[in-house]
Amino acid sequence: MSNIIDNYREIINDYLTVYFKDKGSYNKIIYDSASYSLNIGGKRIRPILFLLTYNLYKDNYKDTIEMASAIEMIHTYSLIHDDLPCMDNDDLRRGMPTNHKKFGENIAVLAGDMLLNEAMSLMIKFSIEHGEKALKAAREIAEAAGPEGMIGGQIVDVINEGKSISKKELLYMHNKKTGELIRVSIVAAAILAGAPTKDIEILNKFGNKLGLAFQIKDDILDIIGDVSKLGKNIKSDENNHKSNFITLYGLEDCKKECENLTNECLELLKGLSVESIDLENLTLDLLNREF
Amino acid sequence: MSNIIDNYREIINDYLTVYFKDKGSYNKIIYDSASYSLNIGGKRIRPILFLLTYNLYKDNYKDTIEMASAIEMIHTYSLIHDDLPCMDNDDLRRGMPTNHKKFGENIAVLAGDMLLNEAMSLMIKFSIEHGEKALKAAREIAEAAGPEGMIGGQIVDVINEGKSISKKELLYMHNKKTGELIRVSIVAAAILAGAPTKDIEILNKFGNKLGLAFQIKDDILDIIGDVSKLGKNIKSDENNHKSNFITLYGLEDCKKECENLTNECLELLKGLSVESIDLENLTLDLLNREF
Repeated sequence: MSNIIDNYREIINDYLTVYFKDKGSYNKIIYDSASYSLNIGGKRIRPILFLLTYNLYKDNYKDTIEMASAIEMIHTYSLIHDDLPCMDNDDLRRGMPTNHKKFGENIAVLAGDMLLNEAMSLMIKFSIEHGEKALKAAREIAEAAGPEGMIGGQIVDVINEGKSISKKELLYMHNKKTGELIRVSIVAAAILAGAPTKDIEILNKFGNKLGLAFQIKDDILDIIGDVSKLGKNIKSDENNHKSNFITLYGLEDCKKECENLTNECLELLKGLSVESIDLENLTLDLLNREF
Repeated sequence: MSNIIDNYREIINDYLTVYFKDKGSYNKIIYDSASYSLNIGGKRIRPILFLLTYNLYKDNYKDTIEMASAIEMIHTYSLIHDDLPCMDNDDLRRGMPTNHKKFGENIAVLAGDMLLNEAMSLMIKFSIEHGEKALKAAREIAEAAGPEGMIGGQIVDVINEGKSISKKELLYMHNKKTGELIRVSIVAAAILAGAPTKDIEILNKFGNKLGLAFQIKDDILDIIGDVSKLGKNIKSDENNHKSNFITLYGLEDCKKECENLTNECLELLKGLSVESIDLENLTLDLLNREF
């Protein structure tokens, strides 16, 4: 299994490592700064999910690297802005200085902006070459990243810092902030691949549950994780006075819920019109991960 | 003339005023914050240029309001981020508190992100309905907003704060930071309208010169402008130790250059395959503006 996932990861890394290389003149630092955050050891979960899901239906998954990479750029921009002093004020990300610690706040703001802009630009160019299915996949991704998606979750996160939050609002926040981009990595790939409508519906539910399980696992690791493996400080929510699944439900219930969601995910995959062994294995990997 | 421009402005204002109205639940403040900056009296120059240029070739310009508005959203997001404490640290914009002064820095960062995301989302949805010409216009806009366009100019601006800058680099900076979005408002509209290739080439040159004239005029107003008319503090470049056209060329040469560029713009328009009296008048308006 891990060989297959490693293969996807390598394709993504090969593409992203050189993406901004040797670009720019007076503006060179914007490429260096964006490239730095894009290539400091991200797990590439979203683009892997994209390529893997596309590959359930079609062989030419390597031809969709632009779309997969656009999602990783959106994810990376959100991390750069999340880490800013006026947001979570984090110094460390994946074991390395955060973008603003290395390049300064002003450059970090613009590097985040640039990655979002580049992601959209990449999807638009891909759609010119690949037609309507690509454009519909791009629409899903843009919406999942927007105010009713990821940014919606981020805003609920920042306005509730230091406040107690209801379970309903916490669920809303996490489904949007983390869940939407994970869900859309799967759904957009299925749309692009021309998957049957029923499969897209199943994968949408699967993506929702996987995103939630992923976030609960993140919260668990934030409490009991190993800093050297995580590459970021633990107990960051506690230190930022943020509610999370652990503070609301307790550690044991969260572990249980994470397992339940994973089982529901595996059950859903059985309804697909295609074999999905790689996606099953990746789901289990995400449950069992230590970082 | 001003009636025609006012008519375009009204269409844009009507669309943008209600665009984010009554949206959201837990995330409501992201809409309020974005809507605030989008509707505090911007001159709407870019979307007016878009609608007006489209209308040189086709009557149904009202049907392109989404594309025109997307450009205004991109412009607004760039202002919100430019005003941040880690960037220009401006308290006043169009006579009102800047976004971060009213909503806080964290919300301002996200409101800017959201407007960029929404602009792209809007263009992608418009392209699904309107086909390839729309998609090509969207590509031009996304590129003009990106690292080789507006963001490229912004990064050169921030890294040179407090430093002396060569004339070549200043020209690069302004052509990118302000010029590109003005140029693309005109060119993207012509592409969407299906203008002849020769006209698109002329409008591209016209847009370049208009953008430069616009920025030189901005620098002039930054020195001799009326705060109550401008709605922002004057001498902001001086206070931020920034080079601009005035510091490099002096006030009189800048006034002269602004007039020269305007005349070159008017000359270019004569080569178009269509009547362009409205665009000529708007060009003169921009030269003679007091804010």
